[in-house]
Amino acid sequence: MDVIEVIVAKRDGGELTGAQIDWVIDAYTRGEVADEQMAALAMAILLNGMNRREIAGWTRAMIDSGERMDWSALDRPTADKHSTGGVGDKITLPLAPLVAACGAYVPQLSGRGLGHTGGTLDKLESIPGWRASLSNDEMLGVLREAGAVVCAAGSGLAPADKKLYALRDVTGTVESIPLIASSIMSKKIAEGTGSLVLDVKVGSGAFMKTSERARELAETMVALGADAGVRTVALLTAMDRPLGLAVGNALEVEESVEVLAGGGPSDVVELTVRLAREMLEAAGVSGKDPADALRDGSAMDAWRRMIAAQGGDPDAPLPRAAETLTVEAPSTGVLTRLDAYAVGLAAWRLGAGRARKEDPVSAGAGVTLHAKPGDRVTRGEPLLTLHADDAARFERALAALEGGYAVGETAGDVLPLVIERVTP
Amino acid sequence: MDVIEVIVAKRDGGELTGAQIDWVIDAYTRGEVADEQMAALAMAILLNGMNRREIAGWTRAMIDSGERMDWSALDRPTADKHSTGGVGDKITLPLAPLVAACGAYVPQLSGRGLGHTGGTLDKLESIPGWRASLSNDEMLGVLREAGAVVCAAGSGLAPADKKLYALRDVTGTVESIPLIASSIMSKKIAEGTGSLVLDVKVGSGAFMKTSERARELAETMVALGADAGVRTVALLTAMDRPLGLAVGNALEVEESVEVLAGGGPSDVVELTVRLAREMLEAAGVSGKDPADALRDGSAMDAWRRMIAAQGGDPDAPLPRAAETLTVEAPSTGVLTRLDAYAVGLAAWRLGAGRARKEDPVSAGAGVTLHAKPGDRVTRGEPLLTLHADDAARFERALAALEGGYAVGETAGDVLPLVIERVTP
Repeated sequence: MDVIEVIVAKRDGGELTGAQIDWVIDAYTRGEVADEQMAALAMAILLNGMNRREIAGWTRAMIDSGERMDWSALDRPTADKHSTGGVGDKITLPLAPLVAACGAYVPQLSGRGLGHTGGTLDKLESIPGWRASLSNDEMLGVLREAGAVVCAAGSGLAPADKKLYALRDVTGTVESIPLIASSIMSKKIAEGTGSLVLDVKVGSGAFMKTSERARELAETMVALGADAGVRTVALLTAMDRPLGLAVGNALEVEESVEVLAGGGPSDVVELTVRLAREMLEAAGVSGKDPADALRDGSAMDAWRRMIAAQGGDPDAPLPRAAETLTVEAPSTGVLTRLDAYAVGLAAWRLGAGRARKEDPVSAGAGVTLHAKPGDRVTRGEPLLTLHADDAARFERALAALEGGYAVGETAGDVLPLVIERVTP
Repeated sequence: MDVIEVIVAKRDGGELTGAQIDWVIDAYTRGEVADEQMAALAMAILLNGMNRREIAGWTRAMIDSGERMDWSALDRPTADKHSTGGVGDKITLPLAPLVAACGAYVPQLSGRGLGHTGGTLDKLESIPGWRASLSNDEMLGVLREAGAVVCAAGSGLAPADKKLYALRDVTGTVESIPLIASSIMSKKIAEGTGSLVLDVKVGSGAFMKTSERARELAETMVALGADAGVRTVALLTAMDRPLGLAVGNALEVEESVEVLAGGGPSDVVELTVRLAREMLEAAGVSGKDPADALRDGSAMDAWRRMIAAQGGDPDAPLPRAAETLTVEAPSTGVLTRLDAYAVGLAAWRLGAGRARKEDPVSAGAGVTLHAKPGDRVTRGEPLLTLHADDAARFERALAALEGGYAVGETAGDVLPLVIERVTP
């Protein structure tokens, strides 16, 4: 097969055949198709699209580029969740042990943060001793021990996606729904979960700025899951403001532990419980209700077992940033807006995120919120606390926050926490 | 500046600023922008276009990536011609010495063939001793000696275009009018010619299959020339059938020498004279008419001086292919069609062209035509002669010709030799 023919077919608005897709993904993974050729194809796909059949073939080819995990040896169903990423989105941390406590196994392969959105592995790594890299056997051991495991994907899982994602990142070809959907779903299907709940974020702090784009992505992914025999459902949820009151790594672990202890911010609790119920329903597990498992301590027990099984000390004090700076409310009234992107960018600049894959992150850095949109605030009282290892970072973080919040007379419009549910 | 911002701007249908264009061309030439990034940008340009201002900026940036030649030391005006490439298009060979004989200097930097269209340098290299590579000083010497020089462009001329052209060739991003126009015109403007006639081929054997696309390309190039102070005019000419009766390297030199001797096929003579008159008019040179210079031997004298000044022996016998095969007319009647692409592909497969830049070409290989569309043919009489160094090549050449010609009752439609003239 000739790669230029494949590129030209998509460039000219045609539909790629299954054979063309299989060949180009395989040849790219093997290095026979060059980066510049795949970049041209990715741009043609971004601009001319792919239909459902092409997206399904593309996803399957990426899965087939590596191993597909198998949890059939386990005695209970498996369920997983994937979020498209947001600011303060620590939901996996309380959710995975909560669902485990309610009777399903949660085998989650997760990622690191890039840009203004955080990464689950970065957050968990702020727990002393915890390690993200596990062999498949270790993963199975943690699952049997704790019912849930959150770890890094090995290099054998969808290697085509790994290579393509890195390429898209530097060629302006990230924002394609077919490519985003196939990237996410190839990893989740290869991960071997029996059911999957997708949390598709909508708003300034999310990848999808509008409900329309988010719905299109959700529908595409739900169809891909169903095609692959994975029971899949998606929720569109709010990311116009941060989730919870903590944005950062250790700061979000702390808030997650509060939720597992039966407390925590109401939006984090509500979304965690809702997603847990969706996961259990998709997995066909009925028994303990997630709200009860937060109250009776069984979710906390599962969390402690999960962290300990991966070398972490659930009782160790978490790292804290050396420097803090308080941002005061500029006037008295109602907080009408607290923009998720502005807060995420500030946290990133404070050291919580990374600009390049190889950069380290600060465990203690981030932003603490003292009010959410709709709350009353008083002029001069703390609105936000910034945390950084180095006070020199505050200036650029403050610049990121400029125009990112507003105080007015009456509450402004915010998105409902759960906007919509998408099923196959 | 950030390359991803530039890619995304064009991807999303925006107009690139002059600063963005200057930066991206310079950074790509220096290797700071990677091939995969330029490939994504090229595909975005192909699909979303560039306006006249962007194309002019892109062309200027490519010129500025290297040296710009200067012929102001010469005592007469300079004129050049560029053809977008076709089958049997040897026109440069008689044209350059003809225009020199009529009083203008012709400093032509030319290229090699790739795919089914031939390259002027490949043709001239079939003359024993002739060499394509000259220093700038040698080029000036040949010009003073013969009035015309046809040689390879040095690496210092529009290096950005050289790098980008090689990239487009492997990424399915050749067929973009803004990129084609800027590639051609950056080289021709950097070459330093004072006036330029563009021969934009139209038809199956050309890059532009329709007059509409050819006109768009011609108008874009004519405007670029005018902007850069080069007097530029374009002709759209027929490439639905081959030009002349010879397709190959030595075979086309032979036919060109016939034209210079006052003979040769009528279409080659007509187009050569027409283009020569256009070049002389653009250069502001009036004196001897080109038809006279073919008759009185002065064009032939200039040819002999030009070949000899570049090391060639104008009297040496030309290489001939070892094997020939005759294709007979399938019936008696009028040749209604002889497809330029089919003949070009056959000549390529016989060894006259190359698949990759580094491949050698056969000097003797090619196709000789015994009839042109509109001519009467007799069943069993020779229609074409195929020439190859190795008889094993005939089979695939015959396959290329299948369906490429037809004999009927009355003459079919052919394009007029000169379809249209495009001026600024």
